[in-house]
Amino acid sequence: VSSSAFERFGAAGVDTPSVVVDAAALDRNVAVMADHARAKGMALRPHAKTHKCPTVAQRQLAAGAVGLSVATFGEAEVFAAAGVEDLFVAYPLWPQPDTAGRLDALAGRCRLSVGADSAIAVAALAAMPGVAGRLGILVEVDCGLRRSGVAPSQAGELGRAVADSGLELRGVFTFPGHGYGPGRAPAAIDDEQRALGTAREAVVAAGLPCPVTSGGSTPTAAGTTGPVPSELRPGVYVFNDAQQVAMGVCAPDDVALAAVATVVSVPEPGRIVLDAGSKVLGPDRPAWMDGHGLLPDHRGAVVTGLWEHHAVVDTTSVDPGNRPKLGDRVVVVPNHVCIAVNLCPVLLVAEAGRVVTRWEVAARDRNR
Amino acid sequence: VSSSAFERFGAAGVDTPSVVVDAAALDRNVAVMADHARAKGMALRPHAKTHKCPTVAQRQLAAGAVGLSVATFGEAEVFAAAGVEDLFVAYPLWPQPDTAGRLDALAGRCRLSVGADSAIAVAALAAMPGVAGRLGILVEVDCGLRRSGVAPSQAGELGRAVADSGLELRGVFTFPGHGYGPGRAPAAIDDEQRALGTAREAVVAAGLPCPVTSGGSTPTAAGTTGPVPSELRPGVYVFNDAQQVAMGVCAPDDVALAAVATVVSVPEPGRIVLDAGSKVLGPDRPAWMDGHGLLPDHRGAVVTGLWEHHAVVDTTSVDPGNRPKLGDRVVVVPNHVCIAVNLCPVLLVAEAGRVVTRWEVAARDRNR
Repeated sequence: VSSSAFERFGAAGVDTPSVVVDAAALDRNVAVMADHARAKGMALRPHAKTHKCPTVAQRQLAAGAVGLSVATFGEAEVFAAAGVEDLFVAYPLWPQPDTAGRLDALAGRCRLSVGADSAIAVAALAAMPGVAGRLGILVEVDCGLRRSGVAPSQAGELGRAVADSGLELRGVFTFPGHGYGPGRAPAAIDDEQRALGTAREAVVAAGLPCPVTSGGSTPTAAGTTGPVPSELRPGVYVFNDAQQVAMGVCAPDDVALAAVATVVSVPEPGRIVLDAGSKVLGPDRPAWMDGHGLLPDHRGAVVTGLWEHHAVVDTTSVDPGNRPKLGDRVVVVPNHVCIAVNLCPVLLVAEAGRVVTRWEVAARDRNR
Repeated sequence: VSSSAFERFGAAGVDTPSVVVDAAALDRNVAVMADHARAKGMALRPHAKTHKCPTVAQRQLAAGAVGLSVATFGEAEVFAAAGVEDLFVAYPLWPQPDTAGRLDALAGRCRLSVGADSAIAVAALAAMPGVAGRLGILVEVDCGLRRSGVAPSQAGELGRAVADSGLELRGVFTFPGHGYGPGRAPAAIDDEQRALGTAREAVVAAGLPCPVTSGGSTPTAAGTTGPVPSELRPGVYVFNDAQQVAMGVCAPDDVALAAVATVVSVPEPGRIVLDAGSKVLGPDRPAWMDGHGLLPDHRGAVVTGLWEHHAVVDTTSVDPGNRPKLGDRVVVVPNHVCIAVNLCPVLLVAEAGRVVTRWEVAARDRNR
C-alpha cells in the first residue's frame, strides 16, 4: 500500500507554501533511469537544469552517469566547482565578452563541450583566445521540434567547419521535445533515431569521426534504445511532475517533488483556494493539460486557475469526504518541475515522511 | 521621435540575457497613475508584488501613494524594514504557527491590515495572542473573478464577525481580475463599482463604518473613478508589459522593464532563437495573447515558442531589412512583468540609455 503524498512529503511538519523532495522517490528515479540506459547500451548524461543541486548531481553520477548536461556556462560553473568532471552545455552557445575568460577557468576544471548550429557561431567560438584543445563541439540537429539545430543532412558540412576551425568535433545532438503531449512520444523517438542516424552518416561521410549521438528527454527515454542515440540527456525524470503523470510516463507515486499548501479560502462548496500560486508552482500549462497542477491525494480535483499567490481548485468531482477544508494542508505537484525548482532558493528534503535536511538550489539564476 | 527600445534599455552595454529598467519610463508611469488617482478622488495603494523593490516603493510613496499593498507577510516585512508605514496584505491570510510572532514584529513598525473572506479565518486571526488593536481587517468580496472573496451582499455579516471578534474592520476590497483581456475592462470596472457599493451598503446596514472600498488593477485603473472605490491597488502599471500593450492599456514606449537577449541561432530564414527563455521572461501566456513576449523594435515579430533558455521568434512578417541576425541583440518585453521580476535577483537600471545602477529585488522569494 503506497502512503499518501501528504505523508511522503512530510506535509504536517512544514510551513506553507513549501517545496519538498521525497528523497526515496528521487533515489528510485535516479536508479531506474541509470539501469535503463545501461541495459539499452546508452550513456546517461542527465540535464542538471531540472534540479540545479550538486547533491542531486552526485547521486546521478554515483549511479553511473558519464557527466552532466547543462544549459549555460553559469550552470556549468556551479557543477564544475562541485567537482563534476565532464560537462556539456547543450545549447547553441554564442560568445559574449566574458565567454573566453569563463571558458578558460571552466576548461581547467572539467572536460567541456558546447553545442553549435551554425558555421558563424563555430567561427566565433574558435576565434576566442586559448580555446584550442580545450573545447569540444557537438553539432545540434533538429529532429522535429523546430527550435534550434540544422537539418540532420547538414551535420557533415557543419562538422567539417568545426574540424577546420581547429575545435574538436565530438558528435551530434538533438532534443526530441515534440514528444511532449499524450501519445506523442513514439513518433518523436523514431524522429530522433532517424535524425541522429542521418547526422552521424553525414559526419562520417565528411571524413570525420562521430563518437557521440546524443538525444533524449524524459517522455521519450523509456522507449529509446542504443546504439543511436549513444547518450541520453533527460532532466525531469529525477523529480517527475504533473505533465509526466498526465502523459503516463510515471505514476503519482514516482513524483519526488511537490509543494505543500494551505487551503486559505473556500468561497463556495466545490471551490477551494490554496496559498501556492504561480510564484511557487510555476505558470506552465500546456494546452493539453487539464489544470495547473496535480493533487495526488484528492482524486478528481482540478487546479482551474493560478495567480501569483492563489491556486483555485475545483473539487466538485472529489469524493465529498475527501474535499480539503479551510485550513487543511494539501500536496500539489507542479506541472513543470524545472520551473518550480527555479523559483526556490532551497528545497526541503523528506525521508520517511519527515523533513531532515535542505538542499540549496545552487545553480539558480545562472541564466548565462 | 521616440527612441528605440534598444537605446532606452541600454542594450548595447549589457550582457545577455539581462533584465533592465528604463528609469524615466518608470517615473512617468508612477506619476501618471498618482495624478489619475488624485484627480478622480481615490487613494493609491500600489501593489508591490510587481516590483518587490524598496527603491520603487519610495518613488510611489513620494508621488502620493498612501501605502502599499503586498501579497504576503514576507513582502510586508521587507517593505516595513525599508520604512513603509502603512501596509495591506491583500490576501485571505490564514494563520500559521509563526504568524503571531511575525505580526507582533510587523505591527510595531507599521499600520497593518490583512484580508479575510470567512468567519473561520477571522476567528483564527483574532485568536492570536497580542493581536487586539494591532491588526485591521478588510473583508474580501468577489466582483466576478471567482477566485476568493464572499458575495458582496455577505460583507455585512462577515464585517459583523470581524467587529465582534475584537479586530478592527477597516473596509472591503476586491480584485477585478476578470478585466484582463481585450475589451474586458469596461464590464469589470462596472462589476467592481457595483460590488464594492453593495458591500459597503451591507457593512453600513450592519451598523458598522466602512471607510475603505479598495479595488483596482492596471487594466481597469484608467477607467475607474471614486468615491467608490475609495482606493486603487494596481501593480503592473509601474513597469507595464506585453499584456498591457496587447490590451491597449499602454503604448510600447510606456514599458519600463524588458529583457535584452542575443540571437543565438537562425535555423532558417524567418526563424530566430533568443537566449532569453521562460527562466527570464516567465512562462505566462494568456490564451488571448499572440505570443510569449513583445519585440518593440521589430514590428511583426511573434515569439511563437518559449522554453527555459530558448525563445523562438517568427520574423517572417518583419520587414526584411529589420530582421535580427545571428549575434544581434534584441529587446523583449515579457508578457507578465510580475513573473519576470520574480525570476531576477537584481534589476539593471538605465538612465538616458546607459545602465547606471542596480536594484536588488529585495522581496523576492517572500512567498509566505
